[in-house]
Amino acid sequence: MRPDFWRSIPEMAGLAAQRNPLLGRRSLLGLGTALTGVIALGARPGRAETPAASPPADAPWSQTVGPGVVDRPYGRPAESQAGVIRRNVPWLTAGTESSISFSPLQDLHGIVTPNGLFFERYHAGRPDVDPEQHRLMIHGLVERPLILSMNDIVRFPSVSKIHFIECPANGGMEWRAAQLNSLQFTHGMISCAEWTGVKLSTLLDEVGVKKEARWAMVEGADGAHMNRSLPLEKCLDDCLVVYAQNGEALRPEQGFPLRLVVPGWEGNVSIKWLRRIKLGDRPWYTREETSKYTDLMPDGTSRGFTWLIDAKSVITFPCPEKPLSSPGLYEIRGLAWTGHGKVRQVDVSADGGVNWQRAQLHEPVLAKALTRFTLPWRWDGRPALLESRVIDETGYVQPTITQLRQQRGVNSVYHNNSIQTWQIKPDGSVFDVQLS
Amino acid sequence: MRPDFWRSIPEMAGLAAQRNPLLGRRSLLGLGTALTGVIALGARPGRAETPAASPPADAPWSQTVGPGVVDRPYGRPAESQAGVIRRNVPWLTAGTESSISFSPLQDLHGIVTPNGLFFERYHAGRPDVDPEQHRLMIHGLVERPLILSMNDIVRFPSVSKIHFIECPANGGMEWRAAQLNSLQFTHGMISCAEWTGVKLSTLLDEVGVKKEARWAMVEGADGAHMNRSLPLEKCLDDCLVVYAQNGEALRPEQGFPLRLVVPGWEGNVSIKWLRRIKLGDRPWYTREETSKYTDLMPDGTSRGFTWLIDAKSVITFPCPEKPLSSPGLYEIRGLAWTGHGKVRQVDVSADGGVNWQRAQLHEPVLAKALTRFTLPWRWDGRPALLESRVIDETGYVQPTITQLRQQRGVNSVYHNNSIQTWQIKPDGSVFDVQLS
Repeated sequence: MRPDFWRSIPEMAGLAAQRNPLLGRRSLLGLGTALTGVIALGARPGRAETPAASPPADAPWSQTVGPGVVDRPYGRPAESQAGVIRRNVPWLTAGTESSISFSPLQDLHGIVTPNGLFFERYHAGRPDVDPEQHRLMIHGLVERPLILSMNDIVRFPSVSKIHFIECPANGGMEWRAAQLNSLQFTHGMISCAEWTGVKLSTLLDEVGVKKEARWAMVEGADGAHMNRSLPLEKCLDDCLVVYAQNGEALRPEQGFPLRLVVPGWEGNVSIKWLRRIKLGDRPWYTREETSKYTDLMPDGTSRGFTWLIDAKSVITFPCPEKPLSSPGLYEIRGLAWTGHGKVRQVDVSADGGVNWQRAQLHEPVLAKALTRFTLPWRWDGRPALLESRVIDETGYVQPTITQLRQQRGVNSVYHNNSIQTWQIKPDGSVFDVQLS
Repeated sequence: MRPDFWRSIPEMAGLAAQRNPLLGRRSLLGLGTALTGVIALGARPGRAETPAASPPADAPWSQTVGPGVVDRPYGRPAESQAGVIRRNVPWLTAGTESSISFSPLQDLHGIVTPNGLFFERYHAGRPDVDPEQHRLMIHGLVERPLILSMNDIVRFPSVSKIHFIECPANGGMEWRAAQLNSLQFTHGMISCAEWTGVKLSTLLDEVGVKKEARWAMVEGADGAHMNRSLPLEKCLDDCLVVYAQNGEALRPEQGFPLRLVVPGWEGNVSIKWLRRIKLGDRPWYTREETSKYTDLMPDGTSRGFTWLIDAKSVITFPCPEKPLSSPGLYEIRGLAWTGHGKVRQVDVSADGGVNWQRAQLHEPVLAKALTRFTLPWRWDGRPALLESRVIDETGYVQPTITQLRQQRGVNSVYHNNSIQTWQIKPDGSVFDVQLS
């Protein structure tokens, strides 16, 4: 359990393990009187209805009539939220057309990612697809090949499911210990939404799968013709061909008008702008599953078809973008997820993994969806090392980066699902560190 | 069961009850070959890999590189979705500052309403609140009155819950049989979102409720100082003081930076731009619970404090805005909800309530949230009267408008939760009708 790892960080040396105690669920009661911004009304308890307890003077916006309902037929965030945006890392890719934007997890709440802030990954930029002209062709080893219009697709039996999508490169800059000091850039390639569409199995029933079919090639209508091979078994299990996200039509950057959602698997197989599904008897070994989206192992071989997103979690508060203001009571908040199904348990440590305490999971805990966890914490103002560790319903335990490197070396780009450590400094600032 | 009501509509006279059969869940298989837009590839089954099965020619957007990830740091819908907007009814209110906009349910999917399309209700327009200056005061019959800043509030233990909010005037124009021929205008004052904030009970624990307290007055910071009385019991049960909606900060039209959410109760008590909570021993009888939001009964008395949203459902496809294109297989889709808790069952009729068939409910079925239902249907091209009827977990059955009028007359504006009838004409068009 890495008992001495935290000692490698100078200001942690000599810190007793049980400082910065993690607290029980009800321990945040009494927080109010410790809050810096609180103004207590009335001189004594029981004297609330003194003059001082009158409402504060009206703010300017309470003295006027504001704009009416018709000026924003499609709404937008408050002006003060202008900094809550997706961001990219310019040096990460040669250009922005084959790049990513990271979701601002530090400013998000709950398990639903709003469509405007859902992370993006393009391989040839964002195509501007005409939904009237868009078609989905299903062919290959099928009995009745079909070309379907969007009007056709929306007539099939529909399902709505809440699932995360994570790029396997999420955390990829951390393999060689890049210190990004940003939750947005360490973990922002995950988002979660309610998807509505048709089960892929329904469409495959429609065309009739030939008995020799084993694989499907799924292809996008972007300029990259982005394509991947998927085992037929997964296609028939829980894959969705979706046209809506969080209630409305897909956004262009998420594949409008049609995308695949492959629950629990790395995001790039959830092909956007989906235009073709071809069944065959072997994988296609496309560019995106040979030169990319493989993992170079220490012995020089390459892992391929590593689709599954293993269990992962991260503390979203505090984080580098959201430091602590002063010692006192806080609620540690975070997200956990697993491609194996449901999250079973999340533990939190304030001392770099020496001691752990069970966090509260928040309902709904859905399969292959983000799950919220929280735990009260009294920060005593001394250095701390915050970590979260998820265990999923299969018993899989989120590993440390050291454990991952022992198995996979440091040549990987993808599938870093290791425990994130946030170092809390005495001034309350938060840093991305790796314990080794 | 209104066996003969549909006969009052001329073109329905003489229609046999079992026409337009509602089908079992798997009955939509085989839809593809009946779809008007389908192009079957290959001359015979098993000959898919003929030249005709090659991919169609690339569309223009598949031959270029599109814009990169940084041009829309906050995303927006596709251009073709410009008609998917909130709309108001100009004649309904004197001005737009004290009015409503309706959510376009006919274009929505799933149970999450995207923030840009969540219905609006203003009483003095939309205030532009500075979150740095905004305060929530809690006082009255409490031990320790407090004024909290937004920074204070986000430190309290947080919860995220998916709940609907419905204006009790939803369907209000139908009491006297206005025929709106629009799902958006008959039912668009309901939306559903994931809300994140603090339990009101947590804040009340913090201030200490005096034993003589029975009621709370909750007040907004808009120019109307919109306020309502709430029983303390409900405040301590499941009310939320929220700062986020579907993952991001509340939108200005939904109460940014802080609103109350009173699950399962009429929307106007979910006070937006929440600035004050005062505890007392009796209700305040504010304007919005005396001259408004009461129901004038046939005997001249007025029902007040009718907060609860009774069980209600509506078919969202087909609907006036989304007619049928031709006879054939369709999936009837709809939404159901109840302020009592969870939806237990939804039945669908194609003959105006003579025969009913159980629809499929879609997970997750959450308390005081929208629940999706679907049922396959083969439309034979003859007139039909589509209806849905929800039964909630308390056994409450959604009534007909006739049953509601027998009890409450026609002077009401609010709480019309009656069964909606959509009349399907032979050309596939859909009309809002009332069976009497």
